[in-house]
Amino acid sequence: MEFTLGQIAAILGGKVEGEDQLKVSRLDKIQEGKPGGISFLANEKYEPYLYETHATAVIVSQNFTPSKKFSTTLIRVKDAYLGFTQLLEAYSQFSKASFEGVQEPSYIDSSSTMGPKGFRGAFSYIGKNCQIGENVKIHPQAFIGDKVKIGNNTIIHSGARICSETIIGANCEIHPGAVIGSDGFGFAPQEDGSYKAIPQIGNVILEDHVSVGSNTTIDCATMGSTLIKRGAKIDNQVQIAHNVIIGENTVIAAQTGISGSTEIGKNCVIAGKAGIVGHIKIADNTTIGANTGISKSIKTPGQTIFGYMGMEMKNFLKSYSIFKNLEGLEKRIKELEKKG
Amino acid sequence: MEFTLGQIAAILGGKVEGEDQLKVSRLDKIQEGKPGGISFLANEKYEPYLYETHATAVIVSQNFTPSKKFSTTLIRVKDAYLGFTQLLEAYSQFSKASFEGVQEPSYIDSSSTMGPKGFRGAFSYIGKNCQIGENVKIHPQAFIGDKVKIGNNTIIHSGARICSETIIGANCEIHPGAVIGSDGFGFAPQEDGSYKAIPQIGNVILEDHVSVGSNTTIDCATMGSTLIKRGAKIDNQVQIAHNVIIGENTVIAAQTGISGSTEIGKNCVIAGKAGIVGHIKIADNTTIGANTGISKSIKTPGQTIFGYMGMEMKNFLKSYSIFKNLEGLEKRIKELEKKG
Amino acid sequence: MEFTLGQIAAILGGKVEGEDQLKVSRLDKIQEGKPGGISFLANEKYEPYLYETHATAVIVSQNFTPSKKFSTTLIRVKDAYLGFTQLLEAYSQFSKASFEGVQEPSYIDSSSTMGPKGFRGAFSYIGKNCQIGENVKIHPQAFIGDKVKIGNNTIIHSGARICSETIIGANCEIHPGAVIGSDGFGFAPQEDGSYKAIPQIGNVILEDHVSVGSNTTIDCATMGSTLIKRGAKIDNQVQIAHNVIIGENTVIAAQTGISGSTEIGKNCVIAGKAGIVGHIKIADNTTIGANTGISKSIKTPGQTIFGYMGMEMKNFLKSYSIFKNLEGLEKRIKELEKKG
Repeated sequence: MEFTLGQIAAILGGKVEGEDQLKVSRLDKIQEGKPGGISFLANEKYEPYLYETHATAVIVSQNFTPSKKFSTTLIRVKDAYLGFTQLLEAYSQFSKASFEGVQEPSYIDSSSTMGPKGFRGAFSYIGKNCQIGENVKIHPQAFIGDKVKIGNNTIIHSGARICSETIIGANCEIHPGAVIGSDGFGFAPQEDGSYKAIPQIGNVILEDHVSVGSNTTIDCATMGSTLIKRGAKIDNQVQIAHNVIIGENTVIAAQTGISGSTEIGKNCVIAGKAGIVGHIKIADNTTIGANTGISKSIKTPGQTIFGYMGMEMKNFLKSYSIFKNLEGLEKRIKELEKKG
Repeated sequence: MEFTLGQIAAILGGKVEGEDQLKVSRLDKIQEGKPGGISFLANEKYEPYLYETHATAVIVSQNFTPSKKFSTTLIRVKDAYLGFTQLLEAYSQFSKASFEGVQEPSYIDSSSTMGPKGFRGAFSYIGKNCQIGENVKIHPQAFIGDKVKIGNNTIIHSGARICSETIIGANCEIHPGAVIGSDGFGFAPQEDGSYKAIPQIGNVILEDHVSVGSNTTIDCATMGSTLIKRGAKIDNQVQIAHNVIIGENTVIAAQTGISGSTEIGKNCVIAGKAGIVGHIKIADNTTIGANTGISKSIKTPGQTIFGYMGMEMKNFLKSYSIFKNLEGLEKRIKELEKKG
Repeated sequence: MEFTLGQIAAILGGKVEGEDQLKVSRLDKIQEGKPGGISFLANEKYEPYLYETHATAVIVSQNFTPSKKFSTTLIRVKDAYLGFTQLLEAYSQFSKASFEGVQEPSYIDSSSTMGPKGFRGAFSYIGKNCQIGENVKIHPQAFIGDKVKIGNNTIIHSGARICSETIIGANCEIHPGAVIGSDGFGFAPQEDGSYKAIPQIGNVILEDHVSVGSNTTIDCATMGSTLIKRGAKIDNQVQIAHNVIIGENTVIAAQTGISGSTEIGKNCVIAGKAGIVGHIKIADNTTIGANTGISKSIKTPGQTIFGYMGMEMKNFLKSYSIFKNLEGLEKRIKELEKKG
C-alpha cells in the first residue's frame, strides 16, 4: 500500500512541513531510511541520523527543533513515538495474515465449545469441557487441556500449552512454547531421604490484557490460584511458581524467576534475569534492576532496587564503585598500619 | 464428594476434637478457609489464621497447643503437613481425569511396543524401536524419538520431547515442553575461526522416580550418558549439559544451569538460578543458595554455599553486610589518613 | 561395524604403535574404556586414565610422551582431539537414522515449496508462501509459519517454531523447542498506567551454519531484522531480544540473555547465564565469563570480562578475594582506630 504524507498526517492528527503529495509505502528505522520509507525520531540519541537519512519522511514531536540542515520531509505530531506506534499498528493490521476457521487435522472434544470467528490450527488440541470465547485464535500445535476457559479475542500461539483448569481472560496473547498451569514444584521429604510429589490441585488465572512470552512457564497453585492480574506483560523464559500473584500492569522482562507464594504489586517494572524468593511481598511501583536478587519483602512503594542482594540502586552503585578497587582500599590500610 | 470429619480422621489415623459428623467437600488454604472446607496448620507463621478461619475443620499436629479461642474443629494427626498431603492425594486421584487408550490421529512406528493400560494422546509421536512399559501416559503432542525406553507408570506431558536413545525409568514425570536428550553443546574450533559441531553420540538416562519440570533441557552425552539418578526432582527451565551426573534424591529449583561433565552428589538441594561450572564435583548433602555461582568442586559434604562466587553462606552474608556500606568503611579510612 | 586399528590410522592419517590388526567397534571415554573400544587422550588431566584403561586403543597427539607403562595400543595423529572428532563424525553418520520423505499426517500449504531429498515429519506444519531448500529436514511437530525461507541442508528439530517471515540460511540446525521470530517485548505506556503492544513488524535472519539450542528464544525485530551472522553457535535456553545482532562465529552458552538492539561482535565467547543490557556494543573477540552482567559497551577487542557488573576478569577476582574477608579488613580498621 502507498499513502501520501498528507494522508498519514491526517491519520495521526499532525502536519506536513513540506510537500504533502509525496508517497511512502514502508516503515524504516531512521538510520536505515530509504526513499519511499517513513521513519520517526523520538529519542534524541538518534537525532544525528535525521540529518543523514534518505527516508522520504520522518515523524517528529511538536517541540522538536532541528539544529542542522536535512533533506527529508517532517511530519509533526503531538508525540512522535506514539504517532509512529499508530502507524505500526495500521501497517501490522494490513500486512499480517488473518486466521479464521479450522485447519485439519485438529482435535476438539465434543464437550468443548468455541465462539464465532475463531481459528483452530492444524494439530491443535482442545480437551474436555472447555469454554472458548469469540474470535479466539488457537494456532497450530497449541494445547488446551480440560476445563479451560478463554475469553474473547485471545491469541494462543503455536505450541503454547494451557493446562487443565486454567482460566484466561479476554484480549490476552500467549506466545509460542509458553506453558501455563503445569504442576508446581512441591515435594514432601520422606523418612528415607526420598521425596513424594505433593498434588497440585489449584490452577492459574490470567485476567484480561495479559501477555505471556515464548517458553515462559507459569505453574498452577498447590491450592487456590496463581494469579496474573489485568494488563500484566511477561516476557520470554520467565518462571512464575505456584501461588504467585502479579499485580495489574506490572511488566516482567525475560529470564526473571519468581518463587512460590510471592506477591508482586501493581505497576512494577522488573528487568531481565531478576530472581525473587518465595513468600514475600513487593510494593506497588517498585522498579527492580536487571539480574537483581530480592530476598525479603519491599514495603515502601516506588523504590528502585538493584544488586546481587537487592538494595536501593544508588547505594549499591556506590558500594560497587568501591568494590571495583578493593585492592586500593586494602593498600591504604596497609599504609596506615605501617605508619601506626 | 463429601466426607465427615470422622471419615477423614479415620483415613489419616487422627482424632477429631469436636463434632465428627460435620461434613467437608473442599480443601482450602487456612487464610482463605470457608464453611465446607478443610485446611491444615503446619507452619507456625500461619497460626494467627487459625483463630480467624471459617474453614469447617483444620488439621493440626499432635503437639500443637492453641493460644487463643477459635471456632473451627481440629483434627489432630501425627504430622499435619503429611496428613494434609495424604488428603491432597486422595482428592487429586478423585478429581483428575484418567487417561487411557489412543486418541487419533497419533503416530507410532510399527517397530515400537507399548505395554497395557497406556495412553497416547492426539498428535503424539513415537519413532522406531521404542520399548514403552505398562501404564505409561504419552500426552497430546509429546515426542518420543527412536530407540527410546520408558518404564512403567511414567507420564510424558504434552509437548515434552524425548530424543532418540533416551532411557527413562519407572514412575517418572516429564512436564510440558521439557527436552531430554538433545545434542550437547560441543564445537571444535577450526583454523579459520569457525566451529564444527562435534557429534554427540551418547544419551540421557533417567532412573526411577525422577521428575523433570516444564521447558527444562537435558542434553545427551558426547559419549556415554548424562545420568539423573533415582528420585532426583528437577524444576522448570533448568539446563543440564552433556555428561552431567545428578545424584539420588537431589532437588534442583527453577532456572538453575549445570555445565558439562559436572557431578552433583546425592541429597543435595540447589535453589533457583544457581549456576555451576563444568568438570567439577559437588559433595553429597550440599545446599546451594539461590542465584549462587559455583566455580570449583565442593569436597566437604553438608555445607551451605551462597554468593556470586559461592562460599560458606554465613561468611558471604557477613562480607555482604559490610559491602552494603563500603562507603562508610572508606570514610573511616579517610578519617584515619587525615589523623595519620 | 568393526574396523582394524590400521584402517582407523589410515582414515586419520596417523600411525599405530603396535598390532594394527586389532579390531574396535565402539567409541569409549578413556576412563570407561573396555576391550573393543577406542578412546582418545587430549587433555593432560586425563593422562592417568591412560595407564589404567581397558580400551583396545587410544588416540594420542604426535608430541605425547607417556610417563608410565600401559596396556592399550596407541594411535598417534597430529591432534588427538581433532582426530577423535573425525571418528565421532564417521560413527555418527553410520549410526544415526537418515530422514527422507513425508510422514502423515503432516501439513503444508499448497503455496509453499520444498526442495528434493527433504523430510517432513508427522504433525509438522508449514504455512503459506514458504521456500524451503534441498535436503532440509523438518522433524515431527515442528512449526514453520508463513513466508519463511530455509536454505539447503538445514535441520529443524521436533517442536522448534519458526515464526512467519524468518529467513534461515543453509546448514543450520535448530534444536527442539527453540522459538525463532516471536514478537519482541515492546509496549507503549498509556496514560492510565496500562501498556499497549507495539506491533513488531520485523523478522529474524539466521545466516549459514548457525546453530540454535533447545528452548532458546530469538525475537523478531520491531522493524528491520534481528540478525545472527554466519557460524554463530547458540546453546539452550538463551534469550535474544528484538533487533540484536550477533557477529560471525560468536559462541553463546546456555541461559544467557541479550536485551534489545545490542550488537555483539564476531568471534566472541559468552559463557552461561551472562546478561547483557540493551542498546550497547560488544567488541570482537571479547570473552564474557559465566554469570557476568554487562551494562555498558565494551570497546576494546580481546578482553576477558567477568563479574556481577562485568570488569576485566583479573581485577574482579582480586576485588572478590578481598570481599571474601571484608570482615578481616574491617577489623584492621577498628584496630587502627583504637590506636589512633
